[in-house]
Amino acid sequence: PVAHPHTCTVIGAPMTYGQPFVGTDHGPEILRQRGLRSMLTALGWRVEDLPDLDFDDATTHKPTAGIGNVRNPWLVGKGTEKLAKLVSDTIKKGRFPLILGGDHSIGIGSLAGVLSARPHTGVIWVDAHADLNTPAMSESGNMHGMPVGLLMEGVAPSEPVPGFDWLYQTFRNRLPPDSIVYVGLRDVDPAERELIRDLGISAFTMHEIDRYGIGNVMEMAIGHLLEKDPNRPLHLSYDIDAVDPVLAPATGTTVRGGLTFREAHFVAEAIAQTGNLASADIVEFNPTLTNDAGADETAELTLQIITSLMGKSII
Amino acid sequence: PVAHPHTCTVIGAPMTYGQPFVGTDHGPEILRQRGLRSMLTALGWRVEDLPDLDFDDATTHKPTAGIGNVRNPWLVGKGTEKLAKLVSDTIKKGRFPLILGGDHSIGIGSLAGVLSARPHTGVIWVDAHADLNTPAMSESGNMHGMPVGLLMEGVAPSEPVPGFDWLYQTFRNRLPPDSIVYVGLRDVDPAERELIRDLGISAFTMHEIDRYGIGNVMEMAIGHLLEKDPNRPLHLSYDIDAVDPVLAPATGTTVRGGLTFREAHFVAEAIAQTGNLASADIVEFNPTLTNDAGADETAELTLQIITSLMGKSII
Amino acid sequence: PVAHPHTCTVIGAPMTYGQPFVGTDHGPEILRQRGLRSMLTALGWRVEDLPDLDFDDATTHKPTAGIGNVRNPWLVGKGTEKLAKLVSDTIKKGRFPLILGGDHSIGIGSLAGVLSARPHTGVIWVDAHADLNTPAMSESGNMHGMPVGLLMEGVAPSEPVPGFDWLYQTFRNRLPPDSIVYVGLRDVDPAERELIRDLGISAFTMHEIDRYGIGNVMEMAIGHLLEKDPNRPLHLSYDIDAVDPVLAPATGTTVRGGLTFREAHFVAEAIAQTGNLASADIVEFNPTLTNDAGADETAELTLQIITSLMGKSII
Ligand SMILES: [Mn+2]
Ligand SMILES: [Mn+2]
Ligand SMILES: [Mn+2]
Ligand SMILES: [Mn+2]
Ligand SMILES: [Mn+2]
Ligand SMILES: [Mn+2]
Repeated sequence: PVAHPHTCTVIGAPMTYGQPFVGTDHGPEILRQRGLRSMLTALGWRVEDLPDLDFDDATTHKPTAGIGNVRNPWLVGKGTEKLAKLVSDTIKKGRFPLILGGDHSIGIGSLAGVLSARPHTGVIWVDAHADLNTPAMSESGNMHGMPVGLLMEGVAPSEPVPGFDWLYQTFRNRLPPDSIVYVGLRDVDPAERELIRDLGISAFTMHEIDRYGIGNVMEMAIGHLLEKDPNRPLHLSYDIDAVDPVLAPATGTTVRGGLTFREAHFVAEAIAQTGNLASADIVEFNPTLTNDAGADETAELTLQIITSLMGKSII
Repeated sequence: PVAHPHTCTVIGAPMTYGQPFVGTDHGPEILRQRGLRSMLTALGWRVEDLPDLDFDDATTHKPTAGIGNVRNPWLVGKGTEKLAKLVSDTIKKGRFPLILGGDHSIGIGSLAGVLSARPHTGVIWVDAHADLNTPAMSESGNMHGMPVGLLMEGVAPSEPVPGFDWLYQTFRNRLPPDSIVYVGLRDVDPAERELIRDLGISAFTMHEIDRYGIGNVMEMAIGHLLEKDPNRPLHLSYDIDAVDPVLAPATGTTVRGGLTFREAHFVAEAIAQTGNLASADIVEFNPTLTNDAGADETAELTLQIITSLMGKSII
Repeated sequence: PVAHPHTCTVIGAPMTYGQPFVGTDHGPEILRQRGLRSMLTALGWRVEDLPDLDFDDATTHKPTAGIGNVRNPWLVGKGTEKLAKLVSDTIKKGRFPLILGGDHSIGIGSLAGVLSARPHTGVIWVDAHADLNTPAMSESGNMHGMPVGLLMEGVAPSEPVPGFDWLYQTFRNRLPPDSIVYVGLRDVDPAERELIRDLGISAFTMHEIDRYGIGNVMEMAIGHLLEKDPNRPLHLSYDIDAVDPVLAPATGTTVRGGLTFREAHFVAEAIAQTGNLASADIVEFNPTLTNDAGADETAELTLQIITSLMGKSII
């Protein structure tokens, strides 16, 4: 299902409003400076590189404050609506959207766009966190913890959060609980834990990675999504905080005991090898949250993970 | 077999006489300062927190020097007698003894107390070392290398070491060689190696952890102890030097190539998941043997391992 | 097939001409200073320790410059000829040649000597690189990237590289593609990649190590070489750059994502446990390419790997 001819549309999504820190907006520009485009062409992709989405024009005419328990719903809502439309259009043109965050609230737009264009998509969520909160559940009110929650069938709120009317009009498709697998979880809120259990969501936490090894875990994770339809398109959402903070310190919500350098690559390689990967976002790189060496290392790792998921292999 | 209702008795055992360094006596107080009690209550345990055992009152009226090849036998003997009685009493009250070292010579008291109250207990010994020496075998004379040796059937000396008369009176139960499994060995004395082979003791060294993966190793280790009786109570003795010294530098006898951060947790989680864990000690944290950052990191890791073995899980 | 009685001949091969950096010639002397001989005798080996080979006498009467695309062919050619003869003679005396590099161009001499004395040998090549280049393929012209290429059946040039007449006279045996396995690859040139695929060479890259675990990989790798003849002699060529550069920084062509400390040992232990290992070289340690701490750590690791491959085990 990957786009033919191999054209990849790079979508910069410099969102910061889904969490408390500025700095996640630097991701797209830094990845481009480090050679993203030439790396993609070296792997045989044709590349369409769009200007970054503008998530700040909404600030001029709408309130930016929180509503109830949710922080910046209007800004996140208007921004992710733009992203959803662009992702959906890109897929319909037969291209592979490679979405560069920004914080993980952009996952709301990516998922909505993917589900609109290809409702049957299976999703791999690589993250230390489940991002399964809804406004009613969330303790922090940060929307980067809600992309899965807002898009999942049976979990998403029945009424729109302010700013998210579009999710209840054009982009009404939701993700069935059996159409996502988690990889790398290690910091899950009690209410999320309950949902994962109740809905029987397939979750490979660090415990399972230790128990079975990353090779078996990826085989099981991919198998879960492809067992009924081996041609099913896959969407990958890769939160860089899935990687151990020793290796990827430049991110906002670090949790120890994460993916090793090799596992971080293997996850991407294994998904690429399916031939089913049709869209991806990589998020939460924030160079301002550590020293220069740490920012450099995290940027380089992010670029390498993209290289792996776009098809690079050792042999 | 875990105590019902879930009451845990925290037993501070600040022993230093089983090895050459002062500093192991700080373990219990530091773990309490870092929130041990609230962590336990958050996991649903009722907590009884006893004052630390006093291992220094024996110094006033008895010789402290070595006897033959053994260092401080009288001090270690009197201290571990106290601990053995307290552990046995705690178990008989239906409570879970959580014993905080102190050096690993306290294992003499823990094992003796556990075997007195529940002779059928299976023991998991997580350690870089086998601690299987006897006074006749030991090269160093340090008693933290002898807890398994002094308590094992067919290995324990036939005559008491001075200070250990109690081990030949009230606490005569010994551990059969098939009732212990080692996890994490990587520095084994030649005489210990011979015993492990001759007695057919189940030992999962770092080589086996590399060969089979920690998931399979823990399944085999636990399976070995529970194969005849799935309801058998388990005792865990966790020497923090099992963990790689990069992660746990604050301990006396570091050996490279140890458990990773994730494996260190997984071992504890896997044992907790059996539901059979009925007592545990965690030993050899010594904050004085490295810099402040290393001491902090080792303390935090120790606390997290306790959290895992007392029931914390990701999902 | 290991030499009986257990006599090991230590062959210092301080080659520097196969790559751009001086410093690889310090390997043999540093390993001896760190106790190589006493370590070998402690493992039960009788040791013959020869003076290092002199690779500089060729400099006085022959051109040292490159020829075509190849750097220092004459110097590497004359040096490896000496080594090939010594390795062959050592094996014919019933001894175990333990060859200390030097850069990996010495593999030309080791392989030629081994194949001359025991044509049926199976080879395990532990390396971040495939070293499968020929002068026609090589991008760098460095001969440390050519030892496998110059000795492999169907790959080796039909005409001698200048300085390598001996490879087309006395030492004509070549290595069939099914008689080598790679372990640890992660930086393979496109032309090498094609050869590996076309010839069906057994290659366990870091991807396979992540997928299957090092235990299964070594079982498959050894199984591949021994499946037809369980008594087949094995030669191990261990490039220290197979190990992750965090652990072994003192080498010339580091690549991230390498073997861990434990895997680096496990590979050697697993090969030693076959009982078939009959010769080995360990190469590319260069203490001048990092700071003192890094050089020390790499030297120690190199010595420990030798210890493991010569028979040390935990239990
Ligand atoms: Mn996250
Ligand atoms: Mn996330
Ligand atoms: Mn120990
Ligand atoms: Mn111990
Ligand atoms: Mn190499
Ligand atoms: Mn090499």
